[in-house]
Amino acid sequence: MLTLPSINADDRVQLVAACAPRESSRAAFEQEFGGRTYQNVEDICADPDVEAVYIATPHQMHVDHVEIAAKAGKHVLVEKPLAIHLEDGIKMVEACEKAGVQLIVGPSHSFDGAVMLAHKIIQSGDVGNVRMIHAMNYTDFLYRPRRPEELVTEEGGGVIFSQAVHQLDIVRLLGGGMMKTITAATGNWDPARPTEGAYSALATFEGGAFASLTYSGYAHFDSDVWQGWVGELGYPKDPESYGQARKALTKVSSPEEESALKSGRTYGETPARPPAPNHEHFGPIIVSCDGGDLRITPNGVWLHGHFEQKYIPAPLEMGPRAGVNSALIKAVRFNAPPSQTGRWGLATLEACHAILQSAEAAAPVKLLHQIQTQKTNIGGNS
Amino acid sequence: MLTLPSINADDRVQLVAACAPRESSRAAFEQEFGGRTYQNVEDICADPDVEAVYIATPHQMHVDHVEIAAKAGKHVLVEKPLAIHLEDGIKMVEACEKAGVQLIVGPSHSFDGAVMLAHKIIQSGDVGNVRMIHAMNYTDFLYRPRRPEELVTEEGGGVIFSQAVHQLDIVRLLGGGMMKTITAATGNWDPARPTEGAYSALATFEGGAFASLTYSGYAHFDSDVWQGWVGELGYPKDPESYGQARKALTKVSSPEEESALKSGRTYGETPARPPAPNHEHFGPIIVSCDGGDLRITPNGVWLHGHFEQKYIPAPLEMGPRAGVNSALIKAVRFNAPPSQTGRWGLATLEACHAILQSAEAAAPVKLLHQIQTQKTNIGGNS
Repeated sequence: MLTLPSINADDRVQLVAACAPRESSRAAFEQEFGGRTYQNVEDICADPDVEAVYIATPHQMHVDHVEIAAKAGKHVLVEKPLAIHLEDGIKMVEACEKAGVQLIVGPSHSFDGAVMLAHKIIQSGDVGNVRMIHAMNYTDFLYRPRRPEELVTEEGGGVIFSQAVHQLDIVRLLGGGMMKTITAATGNWDPARPTEGAYSALATFEGGAFASLTYSGYAHFDSDVWQGWVGELGYPKDPESYGQARKALTKVSSPEEESALKSGRTYGETPARPPAPNHEHFGPIIVSCDGGDLRITPNGVWLHGHFEQKYIPAPLEMGPRAGVNSALIKAVRFNAPPSQTGRWGLATLEACHAILQSAEAAAPVKLLHQIQTQKTNIGGNS
Repeated sequence: MLTLPSINADDRVQLVAACAPRESSRAAFEQEFGGRTYQNVEDICADPDVEAVYIATPHQMHVDHVEIAAKAGKHVLVEKPLAIHLEDGIKMVEACEKAGVQLIVGPSHSFDGAVMLAHKIIQSGDVGNVRMIHAMNYTDFLYRPRRPEELVTEEGGGVIFSQAVHQLDIVRLLGGGMMKTITAATGNWDPARPTEGAYSALATFEGGAFASLTYSGYAHFDSDVWQGWVGELGYPKDPESYGQARKALTKVSSPEEESALKSGRTYGETPARPPAPNHEHFGPIIVSCDGGDLRITPNGVWLHGHFEQKYIPAPLEMGPRAGVNSALIKAVRFNAPPSQTGRWGLATLEACHAILQSAEAAAPVKLLHQIQTQKTNIGGNS
């Protein structure tokens, strides 16, 4: 539902088939796109018209679905996180490498227009070395309607696997990819939703750069106040609608009812929105470089140099997630994958686990699966 | 010079004597306040009309000056940091305890109106336990005119002893005081000014709360954009004056010339400004509590609760540093010191050293000299 507006706005992408357990979703797809629908993953992966499969199933199902797609020779775009368990992630990467298919992890906020623009500026060398990255985001994540497993850390619930994964992806991309250590503390403060809802992490990179990452999903302060009241998905946000998520949740009396509320937001149950008028974003991010700081806002980058500052807009052409489509097309058609490959997603997943491990052990955790940011093939909005 | 406007605006404080090596400063004091002046510290401390001595000498001189004042039986207000070396700090604390005089470390941004207001809200119990604190500040600190020792870490130069000390003081005050560990990374990125100009630190508290502190003094991004363009000292800031500190410094051709530029800002060389129209502040700070988040702005606190949010102003009565005067008066006249005593300053100084040590060792540093925030005697603006 979140990616559909950008697919609809992008004439390079054609939806030819869909697979869903819910009958209403399949019927809606047939009607809207005139495509074929399937009830199981093997069947859609056997469809000869399918060039790449976008796997947007719950986290814990990614491993099976990616392996099936790889075995059928289909390229894969899989939602973040790559997997919950590192071993599953490794299996997925190896399955796709063995099958010779592309594996891209996305959409992720590392594809956001202004993040990609910041990446280009850094790669241009104009601002010198990246030295320090500061990323923060305060949202209502924990109080949006959830399925029960989304509140169980072991099953990939909480903010680490769903939200830290974005922040780490962005920070790794801008910091060059090779994260060395993570030291973190996590917050699990609401007994009614007993999973991590907040964290602060200090990460170091090979080469000496470091990053600070802070997130709270407890629905109090909203850091979009510093992002021009543009919401995470690029739609304008009404500051007067304070506390909406928590208020809606007070009307829910059981986990089943809450799951139903979430299901009501899936494809076939409610129409897709038009593409957002702004890029997506993941909270304020400041990148300190030798030659200046980059401040990432929803629609562009403020470049604060030694003596001058200027704002560089990130053009929005075909919906905020067009950059993911571009990356997929370049990978599939030109064998030129973006940074955000399966091995990249594995490195980010490792960093997610490091946050949990470090918080548990009250000690820094060394990272072993890191890979570098691609210097070429920087995906843009088009 | 920075405290004088608030002293001038506060009829509870009378400046009866001053001590300075510079003749022009002494002459100006005599003319402005009609008070006595001295060339050495022993003499001012022997003045029977002096009830408390405000020691605003360079960091490395604090220990001698505080010991002299204590020996003479004078109460002391000493500028932050308490000292550079922990051993000096211990000497100072013990000298004052032995002499039975009050030792207060300030002004410090932990006395800022909105910080004290946030402290009161926390102490009231209305927002429950403090869980996570996020503090950030991006300034031009490193490019303001400096004396040579202010760029040498061992002599107390760089941002750790001058700026982290503020951020740690605030975070410790709001977090209850008992910091347990610090893990940090520091940035020393400009060979022309070879001292720490930036850091990120992750701190844990006894009881499980944690804090993230980030600072850059490299004069690029200015976080006052998120503080309504109120500058650190409470004066309005013109966003158009970007890059001023660095530009001014390009016109300086030697360390002597730079020192002279700094001296030109001292008392007697330039008139004191009128008191600032806003409270002082030290960058955006978010305190996440069980019952809501507090966002500290220059002139008040946004209280973001579960369902509602409201802004609570911190009244400004007699200049932004009146809270320090209040604390001094309560300590001296009513034996009711604030949190920010000598032992408190020692605990904050320990945390400053921990940032340097942790960055050097790439490991968490345990803190041993921490003390609790005072629950009573919360200084206000009056």
